[in-house]
Amino acid sequence: MSKSDLEIAQECVLEPIEKVAAKIGIPADSLELYGKYKAKLSFDYIKELENRSMGKLVLVTAINPTKAGEGKSTTTVGLGDALNQIGKKTMMALREPSLGPVFGLKGGAAGGGYAQVVPMEDINLHFTGDMHAITTANNLVCAMIDNHIHQGNELNIDPEKITFKRCLDMNDRTLRDITIGQGSKANGVERKDGFNITVASEVMAALCLADDLMDLKRRFGEMLVAYTYNDEPVYIKDLKCEGAMAMVMKDAILPNIVQTLEHNPVLIHGGPFANIAHGCNSVIATKASLHLADYTVTEAGFGADLGAEKFLDIKCRLAHLHPNAVVIVATVRALKQHGGVAFEDLKEENVDALLKGCENLAKHIDTIQQFGLPYVIAINQFVSDTDREIEALENWCQGHGHPMSLSTVWANGGKGAIDLAEKVVALCEKENHYAPLYDVDKTIEEKIETIAKKVYGADGVQFTPEAKEQIEIFNKNGWGKLPICMAKTQMSLSDDGSIMGRPQGFTITVRELRPSLGAGFIVALTGKVLTMPGLPKHPSALDMDIDENGKIKGLF
Amino acid sequence: MSKSDLEIAQECVLEPIEKVAAKIGIPADSLELYGKYKAKLSFDYIKELENRSMGKLVLVTAINPTKAGEGKSTTTVGLGDALNQIGKKTMMALREPSLGPVFGLKGGAAGGGYAQVVPMEDINLHFTGDMHAITTANNLVCAMIDNHIHQGNELNIDPEKITFKRCLDMNDRTLRDITIGQGSKANGVERKDGFNITVASEVMAALCLADDLMDLKRRFGEMLVAYTYNDEPVYIKDLKCEGAMAMVMKDAILPNIVQTLEHNPVLIHGGPFANIAHGCNSVIATKASLHLADYTVTEAGFGADLGAEKFLDIKCRLAHLHPNAVVIVATVRALKQHGGVAFEDLKEENVDALLKGCENLAKHIDTIQQFGLPYVIAINQFVSDTDREIEALENWCQGHGHPMSLSTVWANGGKGAIDLAEKVVALCEKENHYAPLYDVDKTIEEKIETIAKKVYGADGVQFTPEAKEQIEIFNKNGWGKLPICMAKTQMSLSDDGSIMGRPQGFTITVRELRPSLGAGFIVALTGKVLTMPGLPKHPSALDMDIDENGKIKGLF
Repeated sequence: MSKSDLEIAQECVLEPIEKVAAKIGIPADSLELYGKYKAKLSFDYIKELENRSMGKLVLVTAINPTKAGEGKSTTTVGLGDALNQIGKKTMMALREPSLGPVFGLKGGAAGGGYAQVVPMEDINLHFTGDMHAITTANNLVCAMIDNHIHQGNELNIDPEKITFKRCLDMNDRTLRDITIGQGSKANGVERKDGFNITVASEVMAALCLADDLMDLKRRFGEMLVAYTYNDEPVYIKDLKCEGAMAMVMKDAILPNIVQTLEHNPVLIHGGPFANIAHGCNSVIATKASLHLADYTVTEAGFGADLGAEKFLDIKCRLAHLHPNAVVIVATVRALKQHGGVAFEDLKEENVDALLKGCENLAKHIDTIQQFGLPYVIAINQFVSDTDREIEALENWCQGHGHPMSLSTVWANGGKGAIDLAEKVVALCEKENHYAPLYDVDKTIEEKIETIAKKVYGADGVQFTPEAKEQIEIFNKNGWGKLPICMAKTQMSLSDDGSIMGRPQGFTITVRELRPSLGAGFIVALTGKVLTMPGLPKHPSALDMDIDENGKIKGLF
Repeated sequence: MSKSDLEIAQECVLEPIEKVAAKIGIPADSLELYGKYKAKLSFDYIKELENRSMGKLVLVTAINPTKAGEGKSTTTVGLGDALNQIGKKTMMALREPSLGPVFGLKGGAAGGGYAQVVPMEDINLHFTGDMHAITTANNLVCAMIDNHIHQGNELNIDPEKITFKRCLDMNDRTLRDITIGQGSKANGVERKDGFNITVASEVMAALCLADDLMDLKRRFGEMLVAYTYNDEPVYIKDLKCEGAMAMVMKDAILPNIVQTLEHNPVLIHGGPFANIAHGCNSVIATKASLHLADYTVTEAGFGADLGAEKFLDIKCRLAHLHPNAVVIVATVRALKQHGGVAFEDLKEENVDALLKGCENLAKHIDTIQQFGLPYVIAINQFVSDTDREIEALENWCQGHGHPMSLSTVWANGGKGAIDLAEKVVALCEKENHYAPLYDVDKTIEEKIETIAKKVYGADGVQFTPEAKEQIEIFNKNGWGKLPICMAKTQMSLSDDGSIMGRPQGFTITVRELRPSLGAGFIVALTGKVLTMPGLPKHPSALDMDIDENGKIKGLF
């Protein structure tokens, strides 16, 4: 029986985090320790780094995944370890996992197999408290809104037009739609409300795009919370609590450093939703890594149609980052699914389906090419992949002139990606012509159409009457010049999760727009996005335990 | 203009926490650092300490306070510093402040003036994440309950009889009474619910009374969450998530070490409500301190009628602790209030009112005597106290044979309590005959009557029909042999907060009982207890800020 991720992680003899940090040149006194194996880079050190030159930036993205995920984080960690193995001073910049979903279906998330980040238990539980700080900052705003209304409502806020929701880092479906302020008058004004999961909070998105603490405070101030009875927007700065929020976030803004199973340094910081937000780790961590390492390997949520597009159109644009290479992760399993195989049958060999499914990969390659970036395909190998399938895939790549590498990091750690690492280094030597796909000064409609046509391969975009009305309001309020954050199913290039492969002759329907003014983008929703998950019939929490020696089980 | 607590705290040049810990004999490798000035005692070290002998235990309690509080924490910190000054190896064991109220009226809470614990900002914000862990463990239970019902309700839970509420560490009145599970069926079953503030969660009370992690897990399992449609109790162990909860609490169970302004070691760990819970810091921290120090100074919430009674009848009984001396804090201000002066006029000299108010002090002394413990009165001096008032108070104490000491720790730190420290040392040399006031095997009614008569000075207790019915149910379910945790106004010895002094000829009305089976007590409510505070008209959050150097203002 193969070992679980938790078992592999628990077998690792961790190095003191000071020693890991020293490898990348971070002095011990620039660390704020959280136990022996976790630390934050200090406030002063982050400032000090700002003047240094930057290393190479490598993005790991993927094709449209199966519901099991294609191993982007695992590949990112394995590639980072491999780059270190071939003598390149490399750090990884990853997203923080959310605690809520850990109790649900999936257990922990910090890579997998022999390409993991440790201490796995801590990273998946409270880590250094960043999520809790976000929950607090978010809910402070909500308490201030309802208190403001209760205390006389000087700002004339319409309780039916409050857009800023409460949040909790828990999978708790019953909190999606609630009524608050019931009972006596002393309990405040009754109104409809709801909770998001913490990672869906705009506070998280703003944290991940902020340059520093003062910029984060400014972003908090810009956030829309409600409209008045006269439909004038009300911002957090009107409630005057952006200072308290920034205070609450004073530690959460500092990147966390941990290690891979091979004791290489990793920054894990920030993890916004990849649909209603941009799905990338923090700009602060990415920049710190670029200042410290010669190579920074980072990831973006879901497939290239969502994660890479937002990384390149939102994060890199706003943070003035220039990526050097893109790794597109694909699996035989997902390609077969795109070729028409049902999820249950993905373990069976099917070369024809695999080759048909390559059209999905081809579209994502096309997208990366449109951004002007060099790429390599990383095939994340599973034990169920057959030699014939791998060979067919290699032939397809070769036939189409796509650079490709077989990655076995799950089973072998860094040495499973030596070839990939060498190919990535070669790509980084090339000059590239990266540019975002659209000009932010275009209209909201034009920007969305550009993404839909160029990235999804759609014929066009339909806007519902509600969406059209919102666009009008946004333009009136001066919010029209922001980049677009698309919320779309990750399962398909289209906005219908059941359409596999490379759909043709379809349109995208934009149903709703939401202004994330503190994060600095407009969210365009193409369907219903669940911002508060639920627990399954048999939650993972049932199998979790800890013994008298503090040893955890069931976190996977 | 006098300096604020925050300004005084920010002027302190803190010592590295390893150095502070070394003073009390804690080796550096037994600390889990949280930055440079906060740490947790390690899991293994806590176990190792268990076999050591124990030092002296000093409880700091108070008379019924004014709404501004009488400086119990300040006196505790100052006394601890003073004991260190006179060469006694002393550690303080304090409660953790709650974050929510910091945004409301009171700002931070870790002592005051020159008798404070630092780093004040961190202690009052996220500290080491204990509150957040409690919030998570609590809300995991709630998500599991509602998920259980949604997924088929095998346990036959009646959604109208769920007793375990959600929680958040925020002053948010609109969450007191809510309806959850609204909207589509996918959002779970609609029902009434509400949030407590985190410190009011039974998870907090259980943490504070647990012997170790396994005992905490057992306590989680025992917690009542609901009744079935047939009125059978449903416990957390029926939901099978006590293991996951214990996992979530693996770090939160470890005591936190910080320092006073005079660089003496302080354990701050756990802070349950002092009405619906027992209002004392954790047993684990108190025991760790007793194993490490020759003198441990600790505190209990509100006045001696609530805090000391619960410390002595619940905490010391369950944890087999034997206290050595009690310090009863009084202020000229509070005594004058008990003598009939309105809160607004407390700054004016009024010797007659002061002497009349001493009857409140006399009752608390009587209570401590009934517990068989030696005591000293500590007068916590305020700048508004006049010489004539102080002299009158000294004469009163002398006339009645009560040992007394004037404490100026707010203005002078430890040197303001040298006399008090010496008196406390002398008291600790005496043998004492401490015993809890009642036998747990008595009936619920008898136990409550004992407390009401002996501690409050009531003539008797009335039980509402609802309370009587609950007692019957509790007895039927086998919960009758637990100690009692009284929930009563802290402002008065009676259950009417407006009755000052030493009320006579009154009865206490018990309106409701709540089983805190994981904590291990039955809560008896004598009035409406607010377990979720609200924000005031001008919340402190409005004045809070942080600058580009990370310096905080407005935390008080």
